[in-house]
Amino acid sequence: MRVLSGIQPTGPFHWGNYFGAIQQYIELQDVATESYYFIANLHALNTVRDKALLQQYTLDGATDLLALGLDPEKAVLFVQSDVPEVSQLCWLLLTGTPMGLLERCVSYKDKIAKGMKADAGLFTYPVLQAADILAYDADIVPVGEDQLQHIEVCRDIAGSFNHHFGETFVMPKGKVLDQSAKVPGLDGEKMSKSYNNTLAVFEEEKKQRKQIMRIQTDSRPMEDPKDPEGDVLMDLYKLVATEEQVAEMSETYRKGGFGYGEVKKALANAAQEYWGEVRERRAEFAAKPELVREILAAGAEKARGKASAVLKRAQEACGVVGW
Amino acid sequence: MRVLSGIQPTGPFHWGNYFGAIQQYIELQDVATESYYFIANLHALNTVRDKALLQQYTLDGATDLLALGLDPEKAVLFVQSDVPEVSQLCWLLLTGTPMGLLERCVSYKDKIAKGMKADAGLFTYPVLQAADILAYDADIVPVGEDQLQHIEVCRDIAGSFNHHFGETFVMPKGKVLDQSAKVPGLDGEKMSKSYNNTLAVFEEEKKQRKQIMRIQTDSRPMEDPKDPEGDVLMDLYKLVATEEQVAEMSETYRKGGFGYGEVKKALANAAQEYWGEVRERRAEFAAKPELVREILAAGAEKARGKASAVLKRAQEACGVVGW
Repeated sequence: MRVLSGIQPTGPFHWGNYFGAIQQYIELQDVATESYYFIANLHALNTVRDKALLQQYTLDGATDLLALGLDPEKAVLFVQSDVPEVSQLCWLLLTGTPMGLLERCVSYKDKIAKGMKADAGLFTYPVLQAADILAYDADIVPVGEDQLQHIEVCRDIAGSFNHHFGETFVMPKGKVLDQSAKVPGLDGEKMSKSYNNTLAVFEEEKKQRKQIMRIQTDSRPMEDPKDPEGDVLMDLYKLVATEEQVAEMSETYRKGGFGYGEVKKALANAAQEYWGEVRERRAEFAAKPELVREILAAGAEKARGKASAVLKRAQEACGVVGW
Repeated sequence: MRVLSGIQPTGPFHWGNYFGAIQQYIELQDVATESYYFIANLHALNTVRDKALLQQYTLDGATDLLALGLDPEKAVLFVQSDVPEVSQLCWLLLTGTPMGLLERCVSYKDKIAKGMKADAGLFTYPVLQAADILAYDADIVPVGEDQLQHIEVCRDIAGSFNHHFGETFVMPKGKVLDQSAKVPGLDGEKMSKSYNNTLAVFEEEKKQRKQIMRIQTDSRPMEDPKDPEGDVLMDLYKLVATEEQVAEMSETYRKGGFGYGEVKKALANAAQEYWGEVRERRAEFAAKPELVREILAAGAEKARGKASAVLKRAQEACGVVGW
């Protein structure tokens, strides 16, 4: 099993990113034969049109992943743009990709509907994504439900290339992430950067405590017993507290006679407990950006080793080399 | 003046290609400070979906240009796909290219109307073309009228990148080729590959003589005087005969009393005279494909030297390096 996953550097990871995706990506490093994780700065260029910000997000993204447990001994960690072979492969794939295939992509239409600029980079995004996947012979690509269509596009492109030019690419499969854990934001809606209701994974403790104290709750009397199911604070608590703590707090809810302020304090404490170690580890990596850059450079070299072999296969198949 | 020109390897050059474009491209090598000529195999991949054919056309294209006088001492001759920086730059440009800009391109619509497959590579063709031009800081791009819109697209893309990220790209200008010389095909229509009415530049003499003898003419009586203007044979004769020969033949037309067969023979002779030397030179290069490959490899190295500096400028400007 060869796993590939890319993460766009578009700003700090929040709890929703972590529990819905990153945590599961990283776990795969232990079961995969090979795994490739990249900071997708070429994709991010569609939205982050600011040099300093993109640079910062890129280094931050790598630092975050390392702090969260991505192990460069087990997985290859690199920055997308450090592998020129992917851009080269992208063009080869563009030439055989029917416009209709891209026009049907829901994600593009959604983004335009949300007000993003209709740029060719956004439109051809699934083709660069296909190049990302195919360049490493990845067979498993962990994705959210909303990205499954892009995996299908990748399979269509690969299948059609293989059919026309002979077996060249490994057919990848999407592995749908478990996104059943409810991660509500500060306002009770789904936690999402676009709703501006997030709790960052790597937040300074005091600031996060304040954010948690501001989470919107209802105004039922303290003495009323309450259902722990479907409660915002409980949903968040379940993510960071121990099973025991969750059982105890559920009991408190059912009995009633408590204030939400107490729950928030317990949540803030549990969060500090849960994230404490990775936050410390992040501080260590952040203090040594050169180390992070070295890890990324070593990762890029390994990634290029693989990608250049695959690119060569594709180039030979269609005749852009060998004349 | 830094000149750039790409030629698609999609089959043998015909007289129309030569007199309408190639001859003028090549002349520029004598006046330019630097000139870059490339075999656009990545563009050709949109139409030549056959490995062996694309390989052959690529080597043939380079061999043809060398035979026609392109001088590797004066100009940089290389194959497009040998410069990975162009594909890398292409993606950076795609991210800032409004879909509307590409949707308005007449050439794409024309090609689809003519039955070509609506592929993303055809649609984004002007962006790869922009990358081709910008990667070498080219300021002069000789083009046919029909390609002027793509130069405008390139200027739009470069201008918008410069405006947003700071001065990065040299703004190119299109230099419209003189395409006033009439080059009729075997049927009297404009000579064009798609009309299947071409005379190849590098044709075996006997075969070309036969083709010329089959050119369609009218059936006016031999004794009638005829107008040398607007006559298919005369139009072709003007391209390959000396001024003296043309004056003499014009006189013959005006007097009348000649057969088209004689004119065709004169045309075939003049063609043999005109193309003889380059056909010989072509045979020499064709006998030494390794020499052509060496020239292309040396050209690619020079081209990459330039393109990598420009790519670095673009990458630094938008922040996909330097994190």
